[in-house]
Amino acid sequence: MEYSNNNFKEVNNKNRKISKIGIGVLGYGFMGKLHSTGYIKIPFQTEWAPAYPFLVAVCGRSESKVKEMAIRYGYKGYYTDWKDLIRDKRIQIFDNCGPDNIHYQPTIAAAEEGKHVICEKPLSMSIEESKSMLDVVNKTKVKNMCSFNYRFIPAVRLACELMKKELIGKIYSFRGYYLQDVGRNPSEPLDNVWYASGSKSCVLLGIGCHIIDLARVLVGEVKSVLGISKTFNTTRLNFKGTKERINADEENMAILEFKNGAIGTITASGISSGRKNFLSWEINGSLGSLIFNLEDLNHLQVYLEKRSLKEVRGFSNVSVTESIHPYFKMAWAPGHSIGWESSHFYQLFHFVDAVVNNKPVEPLGATFYDGFRVQLVMEAIKESSRKDKKVEISSLY
Amino acid sequence: MEYSNNNFKEVNNKNRKISKIGIGVLGYGFMGKLHSTGYIKIPFQTEWAPAYPFLVAVCGRSESKVKEMAIRYGYKGYYTDWKDLIRDKRIQIFDNCGPDNIHYQPTIAAAEEGKHVICEKPLSMSIEESKSMLDVVNKTKVKNMCSFNYRFIPAVRLACELMKKELIGKIYSFRGYYLQDVGRNPSEPLDNVWYASGSKSCVLLGIGCHIIDLARVLVGEVKSVLGISKTFNTTRLNFKGTKERINADEENMAILEFKNGAIGTITASGISSGRKNFLSWEINGSLGSLIFNLEDLNHLQVYLEKRSLKEVRGFSNVSVTESIHPYFKMAWAPGHSIGWESSHFYQLFHFVDAVVNNKPVEPLGATFYDGFRVQLVMEAIKESSRKDKKVEISSLY
Amino acid sequence: MEYSNNNFKEVNNKNRKISKIGIGVLGYGFMGKLHSTGYIKIPFQTEWAPAYPFLVAVCGRSESKVKEMAIRYGYKGYYTDWKDLIRDKRIQIFDNCGPDNIHYQPTIAAAEEGKHVICEKPLSMSIEESKSMLDVVNKTKVKNMCSFNYRFIPAVRLACELMKKELIGKIYSFRGYYLQDVGRNPSEPLDNVWYASGSKSCVLLGIGCHIIDLARVLVGEVKSVLGISKTFNTTRLNFKGTKERINADEENMAILEFKNGAIGTITASGISSGRKNFLSWEINGSLGSLIFNLEDLNHLQVYLEKRSLKEVRGFSNVSVTESIHPYFKMAWAPGHSIGWESSHFYQLFHFVDAVVNNKPVEPLGATFYDGFRVQLVMEAIKESSRKDKKVEISSLY
Amino acid sequence: MEYSNNNFKEVNNKNRKISKIGIGVLGYGFMGKLHSTGYIKIPFQTEWAPAYPFLVAVCGRSESKVKEMAIRYGYKGYYTDWKDLIRDKRIQIFDNCGPDNIHYQPTIAAAEEGKHVICEKPLSMSIEESKSMLDVVNKTKVKNMCSFNYRFIPAVRLACELMKKELIGKIYSFRGYYLQDVGRNPSEPLDNVWYASGSKSCVLLGIGCHIIDLARVLVGEVKSVLGISKTFNTTRLNFKGTKERINADEENMAILEFKNGAIGTITASGISSGRKNFLSWEINGSLGSLIFNLEDLNHLQVYLEKRSLKEVRGFSNVSVTESIHPYFKMAWAPGHSIGWESSHFYQLFHFVDAVVNNKPVEPLGATFYDGFRVQLVMEAIKESSRKDKKVEISSLY
Repeated sequence: MEYSNNNFKEVNNKNRKISKIGIGVLGYGFMGKLHSTGYIKIPFQTEWAPAYPFLVAVCGRSESKVKEMAIRYGYKGYYTDWKDLIRDKRIQIFDNCGPDNIHYQPTIAAAEEGKHVICEKPLSMSIEESKSMLDVVNKTKVKNMCSFNYRFIPAVRLACELMKKELIGKIYSFRGYYLQDVGRNPSEPLDNVWYASGSKSCVLLGIGCHIIDLARVLVGEVKSVLGISKTFNTTRLNFKGTKERINADEENMAILEFKNGAIGTITASGISSGRKNFLSWEINGSLGSLIFNLEDLNHLQVYLEKRSLKEVRGFSNVSVTESIHPYFKMAWAPGHSIGWESSHFYQLFHFVDAVVNNKPVEPLGATFYDGFRVQLVMEAIKESSRKDKKVEISSLY
Repeated sequence: MEYSNNNFKEVNNKNRKISKIGIGVLGYGFMGKLHSTGYIKIPFQTEWAPAYPFLVAVCGRSESKVKEMAIRYGYKGYYTDWKDLIRDKRIQIFDNCGPDNIHYQPTIAAAEEGKHVICEKPLSMSIEESKSMLDVVNKTKVKNMCSFNYRFIPAVRLACELMKKELIGKIYSFRGYYLQDVGRNPSEPLDNVWYASGSKSCVLLGIGCHIIDLARVLVGEVKSVLGISKTFNTTRLNFKGTKERINADEENMAILEFKNGAIGTITASGISSGRKNFLSWEINGSLGSLIFNLEDLNHLQVYLEKRSLKEVRGFSNVSVTESIHPYFKMAWAPGHSIGWESSHFYQLFHFVDAVVNNKPVEPLGATFYDGFRVQLVMEAIKESSRKDKKVEISSLY
Repeated sequence: MEYSNNNFKEVNNKNRKISKIGIGVLGYGFMGKLHSTGYIKIPFQTEWAPAYPFLVAVCGRSESKVKEMAIRYGYKGYYTDWKDLIRDKRIQIFDNCGPDNIHYQPTIAAAEEGKHVICEKPLSMSIEESKSMLDVVNKTKVKNMCSFNYRFIPAVRLACELMKKELIGKIYSFRGYYLQDVGRNPSEPLDNVWYASGSKSCVLLGIGCHIIDLARVLVGEVKSVLGISKTFNTTRLNFKGTKERINADEENMAILEFKNGAIGTITASGISSGRKNFLSWEINGSLGSLIFNLEDLNHLQVYLEKRSLKEVRGFSNVSVTESIHPYFKMAWAPGHSIGWESSHFYQLFHFVDAVVNNKPVEPLGATFYDGFRVQLVMEAIKESSRKDKKVEISSLY
Repeated sequence: MEYSNNNFKEVNNKNRKISKIGIGVLGYGFMGKLHSTGYIKIPFQTEWAPAYPFLVAVCGRSESKVKEMAIRYGYKGYYTDWKDLIRDKRIQIFDNCGPDNIHYQPTIAAAEEGKHVICEKPLSMSIEESKSMLDVVNKTKVKNMCSFNYRFIPAVRLACELMKKELIGKIYSFRGYYLQDVGRNPSEPLDNVWYASGSKSCVLLGIGCHIIDLARVLVGEVKSVLGISKTFNTTRLNFKGTKERINADEENMAILEFKNGAIGTITASGISSGRKNFLSWEINGSLGSLIFNLEDLNHLQVYLEKRSLKEVRGFSNVSVTESIHPYFKMAWAPGHSIGWESSHFYQLFHFVDAVVNNKPVEPLGATFYDGFRVQLVMEAIKESSRKDKKVEISSLY
């Protein structure tokens, strides 16, 4: 459309003095869309980006779907074979948003091509795969991140800061949960139950990994595990009406011993009626306690022994949305809540910053080392469940 | 960067078969950024856009600030005089995100230029201004919307749907609040208190309008008002240390009588310690009750007499994030909470759809008529406070 | 039953070195039983009683009912005419637990007989009656208490203490509610709706008085009132199936101006679906806020500006059950919640102590003066509702 | 005091047509007082008692304390040796409220004397003791109850009723907690920490037993256990300033497998800062979930798949205080909350009724069989913790 007005001042790429960083995303599903949204927001969401993400290509096996996604999200183009994607020289960050069983091979290959790599959780399907992935990033020195996005929720960050300041005292215990209910109904068709259908995933790999990562972030490294991993609904009908056998676990319960002496329980469930996306944890220390619940993610419950009048001690419902709180500059205003999506946005921002400015991803972000450690704990739960006894993490690698 | 790979499929504007719609935004502050974010998300946030927003220009008096904003948000360019903006022929939607006292004149002018107009709340500074604005959009037939974004929160939409289905029965009463605490401390400098500094706004105009609009949406038109509007901290120091007189109200309380016989109270406060952005309301009807709280915006509290076992009746904490709920297709997954920002995004999506597909903005969205009716109620509160008696809305226009 | 064991040590009245105080109760209903329970618990509930309550007589018109009550609660005997009761010389405390319209005459007569008097709320049916009752206790100098038992909930006491210590700063605003739902259903028979059946009471007199008393205790004396008092269901069927006209108000909303400049709203409702016994209030001051809810009476929500780390400020959910909290010595152990009944027990303990040890009933307990002041506010709400304008309390007496 | 009034009708023991039942209580501490209060309330708390408790004697080693208690609570007299108490022929119910290590011997002896026996939890200090206690009541056929009072909370009863009606469907999982924080501070003197001081108790025996009993009541019999039992603060100073070694566990975590296939976790802690008396549990089934929290004991959180509109499904916060709810007739009015004490009162009422009217104590009340089963689970936790492996309950007896 033509238009002339002498007072109109056009801006263009030259005005953007900031460098670009090329992004390639594998996967056009939930996670692919989510990460793409994050990259798009980096230039404008409140603070200047470390670099302007250049969305080079999205990749997936369905051409119609990747094409649509490329158009909608503003990618330059698309591929249908990840081997092409990882060889694209315009791409500096390879972001693996594919299904769990596609994490291993493309990520290894991308790292060997020298791409910085992001891999959705769980890092892979096994300890062996995760160890190989860790080895290759250690060898190639590429920046690497396993997408444990819940580390980046402001309330979780605040919790870490309070603990760093020793306001909670010595940690005694941890209780963590990740509960969903998609599989609660035995007659829910297989295809509607994400952890049972198609891929080789399960509740522990799919969501349990998150609460294990948070246990490590909040309390410390896990030393040993007692656990039970169970499938209640061992068959389900698929959409065609055929009964299929389900091997994926549905309910996992474990007792963790941490290296620092603390103990804890974790539960990962896909069959907890009424719990939609209930990732929650509580930490009890000698001077205080902290409670978080993802279904109310803008708040942290804080009990501090030392910093309040004795007669008004109780769990404070802290709205983690104020100017003194983490990531406030990338949010809106006090009391103006953020959504679940922001955890991914803050995480991607962190990784882009780490790549562009050569900063470490850890300890704020999770690296492949973290992904590997989480994989060890998941395997220990499975093994404890099979053997009916305590499993030392150190016995697994 | 040059790169060739035969398997790379580029996508470009021709692939975007969707039409464009030109957007011009007045204001580079909080609201200007928020609306810009909304337009950017329309093409990709889950469903195809009715049209692809073409961000033509942002306008403001500070050239450095509008230029920076234009670059970061991807505007084609910028203006520093709104009179240029509204004459830009590429622009179809004029979005007024300026301060309250800049709503009137530019919006009138834009409507007269034939632009579809969005105006941030409150519609204007007075009944007279609002009436003129209403008259001009009625005359020019442009689509018009007053940005009462809280109508677009899924939990609020669900509440409206439940009431439409008569699940709440006859409405008896309403209690509404919009409480913030930015001015709680008498020694907080003037410049930190949004309602006291500079503009001619106040708590009632600034946030009270929202709860009045929701009262109208949820219960019905207001018939009369008893109210008190009060300033506790009548002077504050500015940053230079000079004491200034404050005329802006800080605390407003009113009793409303609705045309349908229901009665209610509303409170709008800028000095309620601990309440960061507490917009909350409760409706009581003969068959049920509903409660909403913006600080927990993904939930609606629902009490229904008829649809539950008698022994388990209680307020249900409904996670309004499931596939049967409003706007689920523009969100993520069950239990994956949205943030405050989404209310604006859904509202802008609604307006663009109304413009492109020539649909009515109301009743889902608020038009200038709604903005005018809210202005009447606000003025009635002020007048009741001055005269110590009940004020009939019909006496004001 | 005969039994001898040399090691058995009998205790008897001589061992009870404590004095007795004679109690006479008018009313065998809910309140009569509740108060009787309180007197019984005084000797043993954790601390020694100021005196041992001697339950002389209970009185009511139904002989079978008062007789049964006398037997079950251990009264020495009973009367069926209150004129006999108030003349019984063994009685020192006359406790009027009769219906609202029986408060006036027997209480006046008892005070003139020199009995110390307790009267359930509301003090009477009108300002005139309450003024006479106040005059007679002033003249006869008997101890007098109007049973506003919610003053004695530990969380309410804690609130008062925090305010006395000026931790909340200057009080800006108050919001109070007493919501029940017994009358929510228009087809609920008259006889099931306490405020509509038989007596001359109404929601304002029956429960509204409590929240007005708490407003006075927490904020200060009321100066003026804007209010609406409304009956939605103006007829109901009685058990015989006859339609009767209802004059009792069902929903009351008022804006209060306090003498100290604070403002507030109160609501008293019998038709708020889902609210079973929801007495709740919030106070906002320049340094903090307090929230209480009777349906969760063991907690007080406390927000303090000055006494917590800035980054963990939020409403603390204080379990008011610890050794530093009010009335702990008459309760059980930290976290071991008390029930609603305890508020009456603590109140009766307080009055017996005031009588026996000649201490003032006020300010902790409510006297007839408080009952009178509450009556003024209730009448002001009615008058404001009739006249559609602000009513100054000082204009009413 | 002499007094004559022809209208005074005296009532006396002959009027009490109800029989008496003789009560002997061992222990003058917290539990002794609590049970005494319960017996006193039986005649009048809303419904007629099955019998009028005749408080024969209280017994304890401190003569001054049992004498004071006898006077205050209206006991006929007292003993200082339990061997005298159990031989007193006037006593039909022997109620053992002594410390944990005094449960075994006196209870056995009382049962052999033919007394009906109540024993506070835990039933004893070991499986062997508990087995002997179970054997003796089976042999003597006396009524027996282990005081697991939380079974009698109305919300817990409602939960059982909902499950009996199969509204929750197949039970998948259970999570139970009993958390206190008395020992959170390592420098808290020994004497202030109930589980560490003097007696041979510990957190698992002292409070863990309650949550194990509830797990059995709500889910079913326990089959196997994986557990950790840990003492963090292994020494504490006593009041004299001497450091003492602490053997009592402070934190217990266990994974339970139930005979019906459900799995669960339980935690019993004395060091969870901010948790004052947090007994809480959640049950997830294929059709719904239930949540209870003792710090809010008048409510039950209920999620039912089948009995609510799909769009308003959520956990309902049910006020278990209405006329259709358990024990309403022994409480006050809808929304008028009961306190923790009432659970003991309802339990004692149940046992007196069982004795007087020869009804079974179980399944509503816990018998010594239940006490024994709970003891097995506690021992299994200890053994699993020692052996680092799963312990089958059946291997322990």
